[in-house]
Amino acid sequence: MNRQELVSNIKNKKSFLCVGLDTDLKKIPQHLLSAEDPIFEFNKAIIDATAPFTVAYKPNVAFYECSGVAGWVSLEKTVSYIKEKYSDIFIIADAKRGDIGNTSKMYARCFFEELDVDALTVAPYMGEDSVTPFLEYPGKWVIVLGLTSNKGSHDFQLIEDANGTPLFESVMRKALSWGGSDSIMFVVGATQGRMFETVRRIVPDAFLLVPGVGAQGGSLEEVAKYGMTAECGLLVNSSRGIIYASQGEDFAEVAGQKAAELQREMEALLRDKKII
Amino acid sequence: MNRQELVSNIKNKKSFLCVGLDTDLKKIPQHLLSAEDPIFEFNKAIIDATAPFTVAYKPNVAFYECSGVAGWVSLEKTVSYIKEKYSDIFIIADAKRGDIGNTSKMYARCFFEELDVDALTVAPYMGEDSVTPFLEYPGKWVIVLGLTSNKGSHDFQLIEDANGTPLFESVMRKALSWGGSDSIMFVVGATQGRMFETVRRIVPDAFLLVPGVGAQGGSLEEVAKYGMTAECGLLVNSSRGIIYASQGEDFAEVAGQKAAELQREMEALLRDKKII
Repeated sequence: MNRQELVSNIKNKKSFLCVGLDTDLKKIPQHLLSAEDPIFEFNKAIIDATAPFTVAYKPNVAFYECSGVAGWVSLEKTVSYIKEKYSDIFIIADAKRGDIGNTSKMYARCFFEELDVDALTVAPYMGEDSVTPFLEYPGKWVIVLGLTSNKGSHDFQLIEDANGTPLFESVMRKALSWGGSDSIMFVVGATQGRMFETVRRIVPDAFLLVPGVGAQGGSLEEVAKYGMTAECGLLVNSSRGIIYASQGEDFAEVAGQKAAELQREMEALLRDKKII
Repeated sequence: MNRQELVSNIKNKKSFLCVGLDTDLKKIPQHLLSAEDPIFEFNKAIIDATAPFTVAYKPNVAFYECSGVAGWVSLEKTVSYIKEKYSDIFIIADAKRGDIGNTSKMYARCFFEELDVDALTVAPYMGEDSVTPFLEYPGKWVIVLGLTSNKGSHDFQLIEDANGTPLFESVMRKALSWGGSDSIMFVVGATQGRMFETVRRIVPDAFLLVPGVGAQGGSLEEVAKYGMTAECGLLVNSSRGIIYASQGEDFAEVAGQKAAELQREMEALLRDKKII
């Protein structure tokens, strides 16, 4: 999916919501456990309930890998289901991969050919040749870790060089130079608040994938205030706050309500900025 | 496997060789492609031929993931095969994972419970809470990226802070403080040559996983000269240089010969240092 299509989906749906499919066998409703593939059954119900309010899904690959082969089957089925039924929804594999060029090529094959998602999250520590193999797929996106939502983001990402430039800034500037904002996005945690002002000085028009609203405590309003561009430029993710909002038989219905609530807040923010 | 067992395996086998199982359907001998699981058939033959000379195997997870579900089946079978037949050999899943705590926990479950390998490579960009979930498994190891073997290692890992400390040094010092050298190792590329002197000032007794000998051009002698400790402290990996040394029907035999050659060089280096 190219940038123009993504922006037009955001305008049509009046939403920049990404629903994180962090599906954990230990947290899904008990009555699903007797299904042949409980993870897929859960995802299908969540997807059907939230799709009207959502422009992106983000399966977190760890939650599938932890069940080994069975988990990969669930992941493949989930991605196929979204692609067949909701072909306008952007799919992000949240996998935080990155390795020497030769190996990153294999990961690119895995996620952009085999699984065939739209975007993959990538860790930048190993530098240019660990990221560029993912950029060889037209229409696919690399989402590079910039300033993450967790406490540990302070350990290294904020280390300043001799000129006072923090590491995340060097990462974002350099990574953007490898591909540009039509194929590269950045992860910036909602918990970073006013840091979005700084981020927008570094990458004025790149899309940002923003986790950390909901369970991690970030504020949607603050993110929009400091991070939104004329084309929106944001995909704000909520995982646990939506998919585990109810653990009863009404889990999908309640997930749909939570997604609708966020969509309404987002619609108001998009109107404020005159994007719709 | 604990540190003492690893050191004693190195002494017994007179080797600190790790064989990288970067098994690629496009590179394995043609005659294997008719097997039910060509990747596993290839690995089994390579493992049987190289096990006498090897203290560790390192399947590179990218090469399995790129075949989706079938790839995970091959990976699980490979790990089981090593564990059953060569239980004294250390198994490293080279996966370079790392995410917020909640997600790293799932990766830890995947690799230390489901797949049940001895060690996992982890990317440090997201800091402490992305690494510590892997440290909750006694007898398991986290191998944190320090100074990698690729060209892109220069992009961020060498950025110096206001005190002149390069990023990789901050990463290694801090990461070691999270667990200590009985549960944390570091990746340092063989291509980094004399930088091993600096690395040993930072982490005098941690084990180093050293890729980059062979196809990537690093020197085993130089690594041993500057990086070896009184307990060896090195696992030197070769992947392509061993497993693809021949692409004919004699691939396993030739791989065995290449592994034996490296083992002999390593034996001499261990004798020089009076470790054996």
